[in-house]
Amino acid sequence: MNATVEELVQALTLEEKAGLCSGADFWHTKAVERLGIPAMMVSDGPHGLRTQKPGSDSPNDSIEAVCYPAGCAAAASFDPALTRRLGAALGREARASGVGVVLGPAINIKRSPLCGRNFEYYSEDPFLAGELAAGFIQGVQSEGVGACPKHFAANSQETRRMTADSRMDERTLREIYLPAFETAVKDGKPWTLMCSYNRVNGTYASEHPLLLSEILREEWGFTGFTMSDWGAVNDRVRGVAAGLDLEMPGSGGVNDQKIVEAVRSGALDEAVLDQAVTRILNIVLRAADLAKTPAVFDRAADHALAVALAKESAVLVQNLGALPLREGQRVAYIGAFAETPRYQGGGSSHVNTQAAVGALFTARARERMVSYVEGFPADRDQRDEEEFLRAVSAAEEADVAVIFAGLPEIFESEGADRRHMRLPDCQNNLIARVAAVQKNTVVVLHTGAPVECPWAGDVSAVLCMYLAGEGIGEATDALLWGEANPCGRLPETWPLRLEDTPCYLDYPGDGITADYREGVYVGYRWYDGRRMPVRWPFGHGLSYTGFVYRDAALDTPTLTEDGSVTLRVKVRNSGALAGAEVVQLYVSDATGTPAAGGRVVQALRGFQKVWLEAGQECEVSFTITARDLSRYSEELHDWYAAPGRYELRLGHSSRDIRTTVPLQFSTQRHLPLTVDENTPLGLLLADPRTAEPVRQMLAANSQAMANGGGDGLMPPDAVAQMLDAMPLRGLVNFGGPEAAAALPALLDTLRKAAES
Amino acid sequence: MNATVEELVQALTLEEKAGLCSGADFWHTKAVERLGIPAMMVSDGPHGLRTQKPGSDSPNDSIEAVCYPAGCAAAASFDPALTRRLGAALGREARASGVGVVLGPAINIKRSPLCGRNFEYYSEDPFLAGELAAGFIQGVQSEGVGACPKHFAANSQETRRMTADSRMDERTLREIYLPAFETAVKDGKPWTLMCSYNRVNGTYASEHPLLLSEILREEWGFTGFTMSDWGAVNDRVRGVAAGLDLEMPGSGGVNDQKIVEAVRSGALDEAVLDQAVTRILNIVLRAADLAKTPAVFDRAADHALAVALAKESAVLVQNLGALPLREGQRVAYIGAFAETPRYQGGGSSHVNTQAAVGALFTARARERMVSYVEGFPADRDQRDEEEFLRAVSAAEEADVAVIFAGLPEIFESEGADRRHMRLPDCQNNLIARVAAVQKNTVVVLHTGAPVECPWAGDVSAVLCMYLAGEGIGEATDALLWGEANPCGRLPETWPLRLEDTPCYLDYPGDGITADYREGVYVGYRWYDGRRMPVRWPFGHGLSYTGFVYRDAALDTPTLTEDGSVTLRVKVRNSGALAGAEVVQLYVSDATGTPAAGGRVVQALRGFQKVWLEAGQECEVSFTITARDLSRYSEELHDWYAAPGRYELRLGHSSRDIRTTVPLQFSTQRHLPLTVDENTPLGLLLADPRTAEPVRQMLAANSQAMANGGGDGLMPPDAVAQMLDAMPLRGLVNFGGPEAAAALPALLDTLRKAAES
Repeated sequence: MNATVEELVQALTLEEKAGLCSGADFWHTKAVERLGIPAMMVSDGPHGLRTQKPGSDSPNDSIEAVCYPAGCAAAASFDPALTRRLGAALGREARASGVGVVLGPAINIKRSPLCGRNFEYYSEDPFLAGELAAGFIQGVQSEGVGACPKHFAANSQETRRMTADSRMDERTLREIYLPAFETAVKDGKPWTLMCSYNRVNGTYASEHPLLLSEILREEWGFTGFTMSDWGAVNDRVRGVAAGLDLEMPGSGGVNDQKIVEAVRSGALDEAVLDQAVTRILNIVLRAADLAKTPAVFDRAADHALAVALAKESAVLVQNLGALPLREGQRVAYIGAFAETPRYQGGGSSHVNTQAAVGALFTARARERMVSYVEGFPADRDQRDEEEFLRAVSAAEEADVAVIFAGLPEIFESEGADRRHMRLPDCQNNLIARVAAVQKNTVVVLHTGAPVECPWAGDVSAVLCMYLAGEGIGEATDALLWGEANPCGRLPETWPLRLEDTPCYLDYPGDGITADYREGVYVGYRWYDGRRMPVRWPFGHGLSYTGFVYRDAALDTPTLTEDGSVTLRVKVRNSGALAGAEVVQLYVSDATGTPAAGGRVVQALRGFQKVWLEAGQECEVSFTITARDLSRYSEELHDWYAAPGRYELRLGHSSRDIRTTVPLQFSTQRHLPLTVDENTPLGLLLADPRTAEPVRQMLAANSQAMANGGGDGLMPPDAVAQMLDAMPLRGLVNFGGPEAAAALPALLDTLRKAAES
Repeated sequence: MNATVEELVQALTLEEKAGLCSGADFWHTKAVERLGIPAMMVSDGPHGLRTQKPGSDSPNDSIEAVCYPAGCAAAASFDPALTRRLGAALGREARASGVGVVLGPAINIKRSPLCGRNFEYYSEDPFLAGELAAGFIQGVQSEGVGACPKHFAANSQETRRMTADSRMDERTLREIYLPAFETAVKDGKPWTLMCSYNRVNGTYASEHPLLLSEILREEWGFTGFTMSDWGAVNDRVRGVAAGLDLEMPGSGGVNDQKIVEAVRSGALDEAVLDQAVTRILNIVLRAADLAKTPAVFDRAADHALAVALAKESAVLVQNLGALPLREGQRVAYIGAFAETPRYQGGGSSHVNTQAAVGALFTARARERMVSYVEGFPADRDQRDEEEFLRAVSAAEEADVAVIFAGLPEIFESEGADRRHMRLPDCQNNLIARVAAVQKNTVVVLHTGAPVECPWAGDVSAVLCMYLAGEGIGEATDALLWGEANPCGRLPETWPLRLEDTPCYLDYPGDGITADYREGVYVGYRWYDGRRMPVRWPFGHGLSYTGFVYRDAALDTPTLTEDGSVTLRVKVRNSGALAGAEVVQLYVSDATGTPAAGGRVVQALRGFQKVWLEAGQECEVSFTITARDLSRYSEELHDWYAAPGRYELRLGHSSRDIRTTVPLQFSTQRHLPLTVDENTPLGLLLADPRTAEPVRQMLAANSQAMANGGGDGLMPPDAVAQMLDAMPLRGLVNFGGPEAAAALPALLDTLRKAAES
């Protein structure tokens, strides 16, 4: 393999090149033995390897592997260092198993809690998802194995996912659905990237030049190869032309042949095919080269890591005092999830592990004073009155009742969206009955996404474990009994009801199109924008200790277009226990300028997790640039921040802002101002470039404007608004020939002014 | 004037024809004396004449006239017979004043409560608005004067109204923003119609061929002439070509000249101009002809009518028992609206009347036991602590406190949208303080649109008078004291908070475009769709008596495409007082079929107001056709109802359904089924035309589908959903060459089946 990639491409036949652009089977690229090009194995997935068993016929029959917290849980760590550790562990295991590329992270935006695959994804917020993704990719690739962020892009539902058309405006695509990929690519530098099944504004993601070439490569500088999601290819030739390098799992040669024919007929430039092959071979050869260094991994150490990550990902969302449990208390464990916790989701990310134990097993192993009643099953919604009664009386007799609840696997899986947001009725019923007799009721949740918690006001504490991987039981035990201090934060809003969710009326669409009508108002942008009550807000999470902030300050009060400012704040652990705080920075546009598609109240632009001993204080700092203040302007096709005042809000969650620092932004950039006879006077008067000539014109046309403005019938504010709304052609409509004659010269003056 | 219109058009010069297509001044069309063509006067407006004073220089200096309830109030009558009476009175007055066309009704949809002009409009619901508009038009025109429904179309904001682009999908335009005009045109047959200022999907309403010609004339059969809103013309020549006949108020000849030039250059076909002139002359001559018969009107009788209409339009939205007031009670009137009630809005609809008195004046004239404290002013938000204290102690000493509250005129006007939905703070504060000391507190509201009522839970009764015209004081007096029985219904939802409204995040847009992102979810369609709590629901209104329904039944349980069914229900006045009930019919689609843009939970499709003596019973019937079940299909560009089950819900309000009758709809119509390699299996399996061949194909390809479906890793429901989502090309992606080879024949078979 001393030939360069360039030489190899020259040596390959057209048929071989076309062949290299699709998989040999479900999990391998093709080898070309005569040239020494090896096959490369890829493997799901984001939270544990799913490598097909050697010799097995089924692509879904995988080797045993360590199961780490799923995306939903890992994201709740609010810690890119954690996803980096997770990625590194996966990378080690992958290389030891001969895998060249790990198919993850999965970073689609959680548009609706109903999306069946949310458990794999990170967040409703693109900034958080992007930072976590970069950490994951850096971790995987630090071990000499490639990562593969997926599914690019705007793939937020499972319903008819292979054909659904995600329709949205450019601003929404740029502000919500792309930035996590942008950060993943720019900061993570992944070897590969996977396109999604769906269409985006009419074009399949697998053949989308804007996404796969213009944005991904030209704007963001991606240099790896792209692959299709399994079966995502529509028109293979169009895909190659658009920048989709590798089709997976292949089409039994059908599409390879189409590529060959397209090159022969001239429909596809062979140089474009060569480029795809070059990009694939660059990675395949790199993987083969790195694979020469042997890799080992320590399964016991990785299991311990899985436990540690699970501890750092759990979110204590409510605690009126029942937690932590204390030695000597009589504690009743209720619910089958105590014995058989759900810790991962179904579908392509499913990991074959035997190492998961329940919190009950751990408690017994540690000889804790715990009784157990099943109460309800973990795999279905089934109510057994006798079990209910046993559970209620166990709860009544105990000092604390801990109910292990969650979504059965049949409620939540890749491939299917949930139809409602409820726990099984049997669980809601039992929780209510237990809470009625036991004020120290704790609920431990095992779900991949938010569920409605109608009983939240009736229980003392709620610990959300999400789907925490094979360490779940041990982690839950440590968190419940105060041997670990909860430090996770919700990476998504938990709404009160499904009906409150932004896309409730549109999700998942009619099976043909998915209209993203809510625009940029996804997650907390929606709930905050409408000032809606929620169950638990984005970024929320409690600790067994407390934190205070002080001395928040900017190094300089004004930011310029190309500059940056630094925001510093001191954070102190004010409690008696060591713990971790996640300092969150939200930016709010207080300039008062209108924006097409609406103004977002606040957006996360920074977060830092700090571990502090009891009483310890540290300083946290954030660097802020113009991009952090910006929205995406469809007029400029670029990010834009209006000049004026912004608020930098530092807080413990999106709704627990502890301190706000004002920032002034100064810029010479303008949004384009179109001057024609339809430009309203208000726009011209508001623009420093055109205000003065318009004022002069108004003085000369006061009577016409007064008639048009309904003078005398309306209050002054209404008259002012009518003038504000009056287009220049109002001069013609109300002013007659002289005014009309004066219009061309006025337009000319204003146009020149607007371009100055 | 014995020449026919055709002869006149032939006799007119090009310049004269162009001239006839714009106004002579603010309120008149042009005369052509040499041919005996008279000028015609037009006059605002929907709830009273606003005819310029003869000899006055200002178009806004109008003669004295009777002021009837504004659109907001008239609509609350839920009674097309009332708008017909109102229209007839206006028609008589208009003819007596030499007016040829009355500029009304104003029937734009209330998209947001903030729209400054909502007080002139009817409803958030297009069916209600359309029925009321038809009544109004028939009334006006029964007196030999033309009506002019306005503003066509999608003009639901005042902010930058002259240039804003109302952007929405076709279904939304058809289901929400057009049907009121459709009914107005088809059932009202108005002489004229006024276009709006704004753009609709990029094109000015004043030059919109789809609206002004294709839909208005070709589809709906409009035969009158169209006119511009005052100053709404953008490109006059384009307007004439699109079907805008008359420009108002004219452009001092500038645009006439452009028409002449366009005809000369061939840019505008002279026949198109002739058609516009013909349509204008048809009406001008008809008006002149009818004007020959002298008309008189009786101002005293019309004032009495104004009082009667105000009584029938008031809505008693809450009553825990404080109303009606009883003789012998000590009643404290509080709030300046008792003395100077607000009874009309500002802007072009403003009527010059001196006949309005306050409820206080009437009470005193009738020697009722009423004290009065101003408490707060009627024209501004100003708090005077001494007045507050006087008001509170007056309330405390009385048996009942009646607070006359409302929006000052500066809060609500044509030309300006409201910026919030609150009453003046001084009013909210005083109401809260009075309610704290007096449980029998009544609030009388004078507003043109909903306001937030944070004190609603603390007061006994709320009587919403809207802007009820010059009869407001006398009507309020009669309603409060039980001499009239409230019978109005809310023509719009009163939300709890502004933040709850459907377009809150988008309204009024950025000043350039207004994105109607909420689609068809306007008004109760939104609140019902999301099951949101509201202050008072659409259709709600109480009475001093009660009504019961029985024996709701269909004449036949199944409706066919071209048939109709009749729904009958018996309604009885079960109380001790005579009163009126509004029986409302809502249709709910229970077919379970998906719809692009979402499925509306229920929609008003019928309402009937019946007056019943105490104990009296009557039968009410509704005729239902396929259109009543239909949504607008963008695929068919037509109305479409899926076959299956519908619910006919009869109720007292949208949220007080008393009885539900199921209806089966049977049709041979299909939505088009596109069959290509991207058609999902689920669509094909759900269609009776294609289900069988797909089943056969699946049996032959089970292994490929199983691999693609992630067999073994996912619960059965998820596997089923994945198959449902699999496009036919999945056969190629997962099935290899043989499957690919079989695809063309399969597509051919399915296409033929789909077209069968």
